[in-house]
Amino acid sequence: MYSFRNDYSEGAHQNILNALQESNLEQCEGYGEDIYTQKAVEILKQKIGRQDIFIHFIPGGTQTNLITISSFLRPHEAAIGANSAHINVHETGAIEATGHKVLTIETSDGKIRPEQIKAVLESHPDEHMVKPKLVYISDSTEIGTIYNKQELKNISDFCKENNLLLFLDGARLGSALCSEGNDLTLLDLSKLTDAFYIGGTKNGALIGEALVINNQSLEEDFRYFMKQKGALLAKGKILGIQFLELFKDDLFFDLAKHANNMSSILRNEIAALGFEFLTASPSNQIFPIFPNSTIKELEKKYLFNVWGKETENTSSIRLVTSWATKKEAVNEFIADLKRL
Amino acid sequence: MYSFRNDYSEGAHQNILNALQESNLEQCEGYGEDIYTQKAVEILKQKIGRQDIFIHFIPGGTQTNLITISSFLRPHEAAIGANSAHINVHETGAIEATGHKVLTIETSDGKIRPEQIKAVLESHPDEHMVKPKLVYISDSTEIGTIYNKQELKNISDFCKENNLLLFLDGARLGSALCSEGNDLTLLDLSKLTDAFYIGGTKNGALIGEALVINNQSLEEDFRYFMKQKGALLAKGKILGIQFLELFKDDLFFDLAKHANNMSSILRNEIAALGFEFLTASPSNQIFPIFPNSTIKELEKKYLFNVWGKETENTSSIRLVTSWATKKEAVNEFIADLKRL
Amino acid sequence: MYSFRNDYSEGAHQNILNALQESNLEQCEGYGEDIYTQKAVEILKQKIGRQDIFIHFIPGGTQTNLITISSFLRPHEAAIGANSAHINVHETGAIEATGHKVLTIETSDGKIRPEQIKAVLESHPDEHMVKPKLVYISDSTEIGTIYNKQELKNISDFCKENNLLLFLDGARLGSALCSEGNDLTLLDLSKLTDAFYIGGTKNGALIGEALVINNQSLEEDFRYFMKQKGALLAKGKILGIQFLELFKDDLFFDLAKHANNMSSILRNEIAALGFEFLTASPSNQIFPIFPNSTIKELEKKYLFNVWGKETENTSSIRLVTSWATKKEAVNEFIADLKRL
Amino acid sequence: MYSFRNDYSEGAHQNILNALQESNLEQCEGYGEDIYTQKAVEILKQKIGRQDIFIHFIPGGTQTNLITISSFLRPHEAAIGANSAHINVHETGAIEATGHKVLTIETSDGKIRPEQIKAVLESHPDEHMVKPKLVYISDSTEIGTIYNKQELKNISDFCKENNLLLFLDGARLGSALCSEGNDLTLLDLSKLTDAFYIGGTKNGALIGEALVINNQSLEEDFRYFMKQKGALLAKGKILGIQFLELFKDDLFFDLAKHANNMSSILRNEIAALGFEFLTASPSNQIFPIFPNSTIKELEKKYLFNVWGKETENTSSIRLVTSWATKKEAVNEFIADLKRL
Repeated sequence: MYSFRNDYSEGAHQNILNALQESNLEQCEGYGEDIYTQKAVEILKQKIGRQDIFIHFIPGGTQTNLITISSFLRPHEAAIGANSAHINVHETGAIEATGHKVLTIETSDGKIRPEQIKAVLESHPDEHMVKPKLVYISDSTEIGTIYNKQELKNISDFCKENNLLLFLDGARLGSALCSEGNDLTLLDLSKLTDAFYIGGTKNGALIGEALVINNQSLEEDFRYFMKQKGALLAKGKILGIQFLELFKDDLFFDLAKHANNMSSILRNEIAALGFEFLTASPSNQIFPIFPNSTIKELEKKYLFNVWGKETENTSSIRLVTSWATKKEAVNEFIADLKRL
Repeated sequence: MYSFRNDYSEGAHQNILNALQESNLEQCEGYGEDIYTQKAVEILKQKIGRQDIFIHFIPGGTQTNLITISSFLRPHEAAIGANSAHINVHETGAIEATGHKVLTIETSDGKIRPEQIKAVLESHPDEHMVKPKLVYISDSTEIGTIYNKQELKNISDFCKENNLLLFLDGARLGSALCSEGNDLTLLDLSKLTDAFYIGGTKNGALIGEALVINNQSLEEDFRYFMKQKGALLAKGKILGIQFLELFKDDLFFDLAKHANNMSSILRNEIAALGFEFLTASPSNQIFPIFPNSTIKELEKKYLFNVWGKETENTSSIRLVTSWATKKEAVNEFIADLKRL
Repeated sequence: MYSFRNDYSEGAHQNILNALQESNLEQCEGYGEDIYTQKAVEILKQKIGRQDIFIHFIPGGTQTNLITISSFLRPHEAAIGANSAHINVHETGAIEATGHKVLTIETSDGKIRPEQIKAVLESHPDEHMVKPKLVYISDSTEIGTIYNKQELKNISDFCKENNLLLFLDGARLGSALCSEGNDLTLLDLSKLTDAFYIGGTKNGALIGEALVINNQSLEEDFRYFMKQKGALLAKGKILGIQFLELFKDDLFFDLAKHANNMSSILRNEIAALGFEFLTASPSNQIFPIFPNSTIKELEKKYLFNVWGKETENTSSIRLVTSWATKKEAVNEFIADLKRL
Repeated sequence: MYSFRNDYSEGAHQNILNALQESNLEQCEGYGEDIYTQKAVEILKQKIGRQDIFIHFIPGGTQTNLITISSFLRPHEAAIGANSAHINVHETGAIEATGHKVLTIETSDGKIRPEQIKAVLESHPDEHMVKPKLVYISDSTEIGTIYNKQELKNISDFCKENNLLLFLDGARLGSALCSEGNDLTLLDLSKLTDAFYIGGTKNGALIGEALVINNQSLEEDFRYFMKQKGALLAKGKILGIQFLELFKDDLFFDLAKHANNMSSILRNEIAALGFEFLTASPSNQIFPIFPNSTIKELEKKYLFNVWGKETENTSSIRLVTSWATKKEAVNEFIADLKRL
């Protein structure tokens, strides 16, 4: 069985394992105060193109979201996200567990728009309701779509005008930034958001997300929150080492491009066979719609998630490619599909 | 500079790195449902000697403590620990952040006794106060002392009689179990506590603690709590792989013995030179008392923490050894001390 | 200006003030352990018709909801309610502030149905999501509709079959139980729900809600939660005294009937004038739809909330009657409306 | 049985009941936006002598403490209080339930001193520990002692120099301000603290505490926190009416003086009989030490709390007087004591 189920089935890129090996017996400071973490921060600042930002490495995405959001908000303030937002659906109420409501916006493409945020503000006028304060978006979104620069700027402008914070979940940011149609850069993200994170786990690292705080007022005491939620690893250097490897030679982008290339082949070939897609997603997640009988056959050789029932006889499935996806597997999948 | 500051300065034992390398490109289930994690659970059950227990791998110690305690307690219930307890002092209020008070017991050797727990219960008689419900102990303690079987049994019996849960923090359990004077086994711990954890981070793993839940009623929905607090790693297999390596050939104990051997040399040689110790600690942390001038000289070549002022001219320091401590460094430290 | 804005504009029924006066200088136990509270509990048990239940008096509705729900749920469990539910919209995220997500069901009449709850359960299958555990309903609902016995039984049966708790918010239960079409009794509520509360504040008391816990396993340590959230009043007797007055001679129901009579007059006369309503609500809240010009005129003499825009030229308004609503005011409102 | 157990056994001063009666059927705005609450705020500002402060009426003391402290602190910040502090001992972990640790200072007279606060700061240097941020004191304290102006100024100065907030719990502030030896005024409290509250419940009101926020930056969105914790009463006017009565003619101080006069008689007569006291408390709580046999006899006619065992044959008891304490009861108690 070959898995297209997600982008975290394998371990880490070989460069990362090599770097862990090479530094292994070196004595380092604990809790992210080591030299590797410092270097990783410096390189990321260079790649982003700003020095006046703050970078923290956090083991996983749910931790990053809950630490960031709970440290940015006062107790009565709420986050706003798409109904499909990871924090709303797939984190076991992690944000609510820190005391904050997640207000949701209905969206079919995973993206939210300023007028929808405006409607949320208008329906929360006074102290009998939570105070919407932070907008949470993902790039790429849960269903593989991406924001372009104008869309992100529109949200960013609206947030600034309305005293809202903007936080971007970049669990799959690598794939988003390397997608066809993307015109955003790391520097754009840094200027347009208050904070965003660069996902390592789903793009070649064993663990690790790099949180970038662009708004100095939100940085105060941030390491306290990381410690309180258990995100300051004693051997914090293993996060620094990984991000150093991912960014010192643009490995991060190379890996994302590979993932996207693999999904492009799948997308193009599937489309050429006449199948439709749930949504147009240029990144490493695609959602073709197949007859149920075809899906049943594919499941004999491949692992993937059935996303939803579309018609009586068809369903959408999710295919995810990654830095580690083998071209042979992609070709074989297409060949099998043609045969079916 | 050679560091005796802690037991997490280096990376992981080579076997672990090798195992990560070998399994690297294998596709595995995410979130701890992979085959390595399953095998690690099986081997740990064998080593403990029970099948009716539940084992979860969690990235770090603070996370393990906060997830465990907050999942075991109802909102009005409190934990009881030593005043020096890690959850009381060194976790940035992680337990309180989940809503629970930590009630403390004054102790000079880091250990608590049933009569002290009894006093806490007696001073919390009604609903105007929190309800003490869980006793938190560490083995080895924050100052390197260990519990023997009778002491642990006394606490365990008292807890059972008084409807209290007993949770043992084993961040340094390897060293404790391999210490001179220890008569506890993993099976004893499993029978005498409701839950305990076996620390990997401080005994040769990159990250990872193995939580053992011995009381079936506390297991219900435990993975929900792990996910909500961000402890279900997407690539959960890296935890399983590490514990598999640590326990399949007793590497865990070999590493702990090495750490203890190194601290024994330090302890014996320092004692032979006529110095005293803050407390008698048989494990991998020792607290000798030196003249301040001596400390000043040692600090030129070695990293360690000054623990406290003892007299006008002397202070206690903390020396920590680990699986990775080099015998040459220990010998050099002693030689330098003799010279001073 | 006469207010139809809500049912808490005035103070308390005169009997309650008299009882407070009469008992004023009597020395009583504090924190709800006084003789009046005991008597009120006894009378309520008689009125409900069960002795095996537990009753607590809590100052307000938001407190009652947050204490009850947070004491019933474990940290990963969520409440389910209508999108218009008071806990979802009008309590400033009080439930989330205790750590729990509120999952919502879209409904136009304020009521929820078993198949909707089923859909929530089906979309929350595993530990990556919260675990739905408690169903929250209100009777009467936020828009004045009421549940009949069969509807409540259907929900109750579904909850029992699916291991869900059922909690009914009775802030306006008096009006609901005295509404035309109601066939529920206090005994029915006690048998069909795990807990419900009988609202005093909106039916003639100064403050106070009577929480009835029907499920013994949920009662354990309940007073601890009340104290922790600040709901154990030092002079708890003032809650007992009020509920004693409200229930010793069925004053509670007499007051609710008056409120309903006043809304019936409004409803019938408004309907006779040919106006439509947002929804058919038999209780003390009605939502007629008027031309905006009419609303503008009415606002010169009356206080009420404009509920929503219905067409270009019409809006719905909310009229609320209470135990204290004067018949003359109702008649005058109708006369004014006829004139307009 | 006559009770000296506490100062909340009776109801409210007659003026308050009269005012509730007179205003009873007047329609008022809900949630503290009524005219009585506005007037009470104005009068309190006059009595305090400042206009640039913010006043909120909250039903009870535990609610006031938990709302205030949790709204002032960020998630990693802790409160500092005496080991005997109400928030530390007698509020069922209410502060921890909002996520914050309470750091304690050992004190035998219930008061804390700057050098003790300094020691707490020094032992909390980094992000592995909570960040001490707010100092909580009570006047009078849990054991009836009071702060004088210099003592409070010393704490206030220290807090300002160290970027700490100062919050004073005034559950028994009336008695404190009217005690012999007091040289503090409401204006002093306003200038020396960031917030304090004036207790109504224990000085003649049915319920209600008046929170005074002196630091404008702490006022932002305060009503949101009140609502979220259930402290915005629908009939908020009953709090305003009570404080209006208490302060429009200095009734508040007259009632406190009566309570103090009653405790003075007890104190002086008991001292004249040669008994000692646990501590010198000038306010309405005194702690005489009696032979156990005497206590046993007194318990046949009087209700009071036995505070602690002092010697083999003697114990301290707590006698509390109030605005409602009858002089005859005091005299009778003394007569009985003399007889014994």
